[in-house]
Amino acid sequence: IAKEVAKLLEMKAQLGADEGKHKFVLKTPKGTRDFGPKEMAIRERAFKAIVSCFKRHGAEVIDTPVFELKETLTGKYGEDSKLIYDLKDQGGELLSLRYDLTVPFARYLAMNKITNIKRYHIAKVYRRDNPAMTRGRYREFYQCDFDIAGQFDPMIPDAECLKIVHEILSDLQLGDFIIKVNDRRILDGMFAVCGVPDSKFRIICSSVDKLDKVPWEEVRSEMVGEKGLSPEAADRIGEYVQLHGGLDLIERLCQDPKLSQNKLAKEGLGDMNLLFEYLTVFGITGKISFDLSLARGLDYYTGVIFEAVLLQQENEHVEEPVSVGSVAGGGRYDGLVGMFDPKGRKVPCVGVSIGVERIFSILEQRLEASGGKIRTTETQVLVASAQKKLLEERLKLISELWDAGIKAEMLYKKNPKLLNQLQYCEDTGIPLVAIVGEQELKDGVVKLRIVATREEVNVRRESLVEEIRIRTREC
Amino acid sequence: IAKEVAKLLEMKAQLGADEGKHKFVLKTPKGTRDFGPKEMAIRERAFKAIVSCFKRHGAEVIDTPVFELKETLTGKYGEDSKLIYDLKDQGGELLSLRYDLTVPFARYLAMNKITNIKRYHIAKVYRRDNPAMTRGRYREFYQCDFDIAGQFDPMIPDAECLKIVHEILSDLQLGDFIIKVNDRRILDGMFAVCGVPDSKFRIICSSVDKLDKVPWEEVRSEMVGEKGLSPEAADRIGEYVQLHGGLDLIERLCQDPKLSQNKLAKEGLGDMNLLFEYLTVFGITGKISFDLSLARGLDYYTGVIFEAVLLQQENEHVEEPVSVGSVAGGGRYDGLVGMFDPKGRKVPCVGVSIGVERIFSILEQRLEASGGKIRTTETQVLVASAQKKLLEERLKLISELWDAGIKAEMLYKKNPKLLNQLQYCEDTGIPLVAIVGEQELKDGVVKLRIVATREEVNVRRESLVEEIRIRTREC
Repeated sequence: IAKEVAKLLEMKAQLGADEGKHKFVLKTPKGTRDFGPKEMAIRERAFKAIVSCFKRHGAEVIDTPVFELKETLTGKYGEDSKLIYDLKDQGGELLSLRYDLTVPFARYLAMNKITNIKRYHIAKVYRRDNPAMTRGRYREFYQCDFDIAGQFDPMIPDAECLKIVHEILSDLQLGDFIIKVNDRRILDGMFAVCGVPDSKFRIICSSVDKLDKVPWEEVRSEMVGEKGLSPEAADRIGEYVQLHGGLDLIERLCQDPKLSQNKLAKEGLGDMNLLFEYLTVFGITGKISFDLSLARGLDYYTGVIFEAVLLQQENEHVEEPVSVGSVAGGGRYDGLVGMFDPKGRKVPCVGVSIGVERIFSILEQRLEASGGKIRTTETQVLVASAQKKLLEERLKLISELWDAGIKAEMLYKKNPKLLNQLQYCEDTGIPLVAIVGEQELKDGVVKLRIVATREEVNVRRESLVEEIRIRTREC
Repeated sequence: IAKEVAKLLEMKAQLGADEGKHKFVLKTPKGTRDFGPKEMAIRERAFKAIVSCFKRHGAEVIDTPVFELKETLTGKYGEDSKLIYDLKDQGGELLSLRYDLTVPFARYLAMNKITNIKRYHIAKVYRRDNPAMTRGRYREFYQCDFDIAGQFDPMIPDAECLKIVHEILSDLQLGDFIIKVNDRRILDGMFAVCGVPDSKFRIICSSVDKLDKVPWEEVRSEMVGEKGLSPEAADRIGEYVQLHGGLDLIERLCQDPKLSQNKLAKEGLGDMNLLFEYLTVFGITGKISFDLSLARGLDYYTGVIFEAVLLQQENEHVEEPVSVGSVAGGGRYDGLVGMFDPKGRKVPCVGVSIGVERIFSILEQRLEASGGKIRTTETQVLVASAQKKLLEERLKLISELWDAGIKAEMLYKKNPKLLNQLQYCEDTGIPLVAIVGEQELKDGVVKLRIVATREEVNVRRESLVEEIRIRTREC
């Protein structure tokens, strides 16, 4: 028995020790990820294309804090408000992480009494959503927003936003895409003529928003079952939301006996007509689809709304290309700034947000598939030596190169082997090696080796900077 | 009486209405700020200088989430841990906003088993500190970090970090500066020979850290009063911490009868000697001061530490220039990655963090003082018209320009006045105006106006892009 007891006591002690050991999990928070050097190289390439488009359209840039007063975000996101990250109450103000860049932008306009601006903002936003990281859906993700605020003639800024989406998606060469367009006024008019009570407009709108993911039958049963809409009204909606087309459809709906009697729908259709006129001048109607099933989730839209989706032609025999998900979206929100202004003064706004995480995913998969290598530094030259005791000479040379603006590295070893130094260049893609040796120092030259060709030339020390510049001009 | 009651009831109703009104405060959270277009232009200028230095030294770039698991940050910051922002427990993991970029970097290395990397990271960090925004101290602020991780020969990466600080501060032309250098091993050795008990090393180190802000007498009374150090030990420390100098001081301390007997101090002094050797090769010892009062607040440093301060010569008659505060700091932290590794494997690291908010403040004040204008867009040309009914022609031309990569804007009006269009260019610094008119359209030309000189030339439509490129080459 004593033996058994001892055994049990030992086991208990072991368990205790295990429990006491700190069970630290080495990970990033759920739904987030690190960007390593390779992912950053891809990310910076995508940002460059997006920023250069925003600048081409004359946008200024702003930045706002990552958190806002909690009440700044309250009442702006409808059903999605539950996804907002709150900070712990540690005394002082109650704060929340920003959920998008649009509400902080509206707060910024109201706070600074700005009535007229065209700006872009690229920053991370936060949503406690179910992450699907392989498809580029994260809890922390970048948005790239471009917005035009101000009282202008109708549809000119709206058309520019669509032009921007078209330019960016074309420039990034992500494959074929389509930009769906609709208008909240047309939707509301449609709801009215279908017999949806005013009080149910927003929740029925949320249901319609799901049509890109679930079939009509499911959406219909949600409308009738959960949201208490009459089956007749739902069926009437069902007929409208399957419509999509171009100018022809707009004209047809203008003749629609019910819609044409509704003031909101008429306004929306009139503006849609004007929008298509401008898009025709821009030559981009080929990628635009006026689509009555597009609803967009957010509460604050008041006019034109749009969403760009990539089309995947996996199988040539499939009749219609499959949508692989939204990569950009936006719309007009004329009431949001007024919600912040103490006197309710409105500043009409329209804007677009590029869903860049999904774009990163596509670019990453493509690079992976092509087996292509991507450089993660811009180093032009490695300062090396073939003999021992030349550390100070290497430090002296690299310091000269840095001061002349040359991107240079060296191995942090007193006496590195030449082979290791050359291998480092192969691994990291450094195109040149500047080799110092006893003889070269005496002769006042540096041996410059071109990694790709293994060619070596002696360059006079005073010409080295110029020689490196010439040989890496394309870098 | 009925009248009085009615009056009272009315007053009550009024009060109720007032209380019901939402008392919303339109502001950013305490200690944070928006960056408007002008501040962003300055910020991007500073970042450009910093990033180009980091790239010149061959660094890769990474990014990590804005929040970490709470326990990732636990036990890394000593007394300052109370300044960490926690997120609210909304179910799931407990999270905190990052306090610096160094701990997330160490977590990243351990998690990905990286033993060798040179990377930079520019991102916002969060501290619930008392903000002093006019002096550039915020609760949300940028850090620009450059770190070298790996097992290398002593002091080579450490010297490069100091070279980087020297390059960036020189490049930004912030005025005269000095980089104070010390070593945690020298400090610990000094504490030991002064009679500080081992258990008090870190808290006495925190006291020494305050010497740049408060006089010795105060620090001494904190050591003796609050931290229970003997007056004799404090006085011995007082003698050491007033020492600063260069190679001469290092040599003197190597001969110091007490310090030279301490193993840690000896190691530290030996490495300090080597560091100064390399800094001499780099030619930057003129700005380096070996300073025994430098302690740095953070717990995780294990070797060399340094801090750069700007010197302000406000009054020529003052003998010594006044320090206006730290703009960069860093040091060696060889144990931090091991704290995350399940097997405690160490990865030696050394790094530097540029305190860019203070740099923004200085650059902003300087621009303000000079009354200089700063452009907030890069727009090359405004597409304008002098007559009515030319909106579609303007849209057509601007679309051609965008597609050719020209940065172009137009006013979002159907029929804007030419004067307003020219005024817009004056206000925003757009150098060129492309004017379409009936006659020009007939002739196949566009009238190009140079805003600065008011010169106007007719350019053939097919040469317009090239002409704009030539005339804005310096933009």
